[in-house]
Amino acid sequence: MTRSVWWDQNRTWLVDQRSLPHKYEVRSFATVTELARAITDMVVRGAPAIGATGAYGMALAAQSAHSASVVDWLQELVAAKQLLDGARPTAVNLAHATDDVLQHVASLAVGGADIIALRAEALLVAERLADADVAANRRIGAVGLAVVPESARILHHCNTGSLATVDFGTAMGVIRAAAEAGKHVHVWVDETRPRCQGARLTTWELCGLGISHTLIVDSAAGMLMRSGKVDLVLFGGDRVAANGDVANKVGSYGLAVLAQANGVPCYAVVSTNTVDLALDDGDQIPVEERPGSEVSEVAGVKIAPEGVAVYNPAFDVTPHRYLTGIITEEGICYPPFGASLRRACLAAADRRRLENP
Amino acid sequence: MTRSVWWDQNRTWLVDQRSLPHKYEVRSFATVTELARAITDMVVRGAPAIGATGAYGMALAAQSAHSASVVDWLQELVAAKQLLDGARPTAVNLAHATDDVLQHVASLAVGGADIIALRAEALLVAERLADADVAANRRIGAVGLAVVPESARILHHCNTGSLATVDFGTAMGVIRAAAEAGKHVHVWVDETRPRCQGARLTTWELCGLGISHTLIVDSAAGMLMRSGKVDLVLFGGDRVAANGDVANKVGSYGLAVLAQANGVPCYAVVSTNTVDLALDDGDQIPVEERPGSEVSEVAGVKIAPEGVAVYNPAFDVTPHRYLTGIITEEGICYPPFGASLRRACLAAADRRRLENP
Repeated sequence: MTRSVWWDQNRTWLVDQRSLPHKYEVRSFATVTELARAITDMVVRGAPAIGATGAYGMALAAQSAHSASVVDWLQELVAAKQLLDGARPTAVNLAHATDDVLQHVASLAVGGADIIALRAEALLVAERLADADVAANRRIGAVGLAVVPESARILHHCNTGSLATVDFGTAMGVIRAAAEAGKHVHVWVDETRPRCQGARLTTWELCGLGISHTLIVDSAAGMLMRSGKVDLVLFGGDRVAANGDVANKVGSYGLAVLAQANGVPCYAVVSTNTVDLALDDGDQIPVEERPGSEVSEVAGVKIAPEGVAVYNPAFDVTPHRYLTGIITEEGICYPPFGASLRRACLAAADRRRLENP
Repeated sequence: MTRSVWWDQNRTWLVDQRSLPHKYEVRSFATVTELARAITDMVVRGAPAIGATGAYGMALAAQSAHSASVVDWLQELVAAKQLLDGARPTAVNLAHATDDVLQHVASLAVGGADIIALRAEALLVAERLADADVAANRRIGAVGLAVVPESARILHHCNTGSLATVDFGTAMGVIRAAAEAGKHVHVWVDETRPRCQGARLTTWELCGLGISHTLIVDSAAGMLMRSGKVDLVLFGGDRVAANGDVANKVGSYGLAVLAQANGVPCYAVVSTNTVDLALDDGDQIPVEERPGSEVSEVAGVKIAPEGVAVYNPAFDVTPHRYLTGIITEEGICYPPFGASLRRACLAAADRRRLENP
């Protein structure tokens, strides 16, 4: 099994991303409570991977909910959705995915389906969502190919590969597709403090893929761009507002500003599931604040004085004016992003209707 | 003894900055070779502290050089200067300080002084340089006070305090002076990867001084500025070119670009000893590349896969157009920096002539 999240033996399975690159461990979860805790603790992370995990969480809820009446049973699913959605606030994929499962079983329940049938349907939606994420990432790769020069030094933030998605990756999907297409790709991997997803996960994935890469500290990105050593900046997204503002791992904003100052193209790479048309702009996106110990300790070792005050926002918002474009599975969105993102989301909805009539 | 570097019992003493904040240790050095190694290994760091260490290194050389003829003895000092200057290439203070000692004893030698007298003079110059650094930092604080609002949230990069200088500090000197003057100061301390001088040293110094502060990862600086939580950005400098371009700890350039994008004033704070009028612009400043293990390991713990390729530039160059000003002990230099820096350096030279006629 090479996915980051999957279903087997009535359990949801995750690759424990906290142990990498030193150990490859998988864990399984039988209850929604455990799974929500795993999302909060970042056993799994990456907006698309969190989304699929949420869908499988709803399948777990459907399986374990024991109310006899369909109405009460649905109420248990609503509670499960609330628990899962609250596990991490920024990525919209989570709420989108739990919503998809809930809406689907609710509509079948209205049509008269019984609980046994609804359980099977909940899992079916989760499996379909996971498969759709992989397919979307493959399309993202094919679409994004167009912005990668034949010989490209790409600066990449955080982790957006197989681990951050169900499989293949978003920004990393573009890198993989470019390498598969025979382009000469070198990746500048920034370490992505505080949790070092770049240093731990992206390097590990690039090693496995045989794609050339070099690790840097986050704050070396600027001088690399200024010295002409970066052709392209790529990062993922945890939530994209209707106007194209992108919430993503803290540091993305700085990279986008530096890219613009140095004339380097900069793209956010996301599936349309990451777009939240309900939010006008990025300042409405809730930004999760995480424990200070993520900053003051590295791998369990204290690097700062005992008791130091820490501010640890997990994400930042890049205003759309700093982005060259937003790469999605339905094409590259360019300014004005309001119109182009809406078109991409409509195309994705059309595709879903065609594929699941 | 509260200085970062001093002379006692015919040895040069350093606070071992690698052990902080967990342990306060001092080490002493009896030979130039050992002291040059300590500079390379960053037992001591910070351009002004390195400069003073270099001067004391020349005093060690004067003491241990055993040639009988003054000419041969001076040759030993020239070799010592080369060894010390090569210990770290970016900070110009080092070469300035070793040069001061060498020029002084050489001119006295020409005047007929014997080796015993020259040994005493070498130490005298070193002590005078160290005292002058403390005095310059105090003046920097008084000068810089003008740019600090009554209530100021100051973003500070790396470490520029007592440890980075002989005592008091440059950018930190401004912060201390503002706090001493009763201004309400809060410091955003960025951790400053890879060696975490912010997380380890600046927090430790601010704790000791009782100045309010919060630790962040380097890449959170941008979102803080964008959300209006930063009134002022201050950092030090390792070498300032004649046109005002500033080489400083990697990440300074990114902060300056982000400050400008967000309308936040940004100052480099240096003593005039850090100005290198011989270099037209910052692209001529040699930028030291340090071992990859500084990035791939934190406190001895590996955070990246074994054998990962790392690029670890210790410094970057901030083009002068991103700086609001450069604060020196002879006043604040504003654009055009070519003229204002020259004036500040001349004023410093005049002051030296007055104080050491």
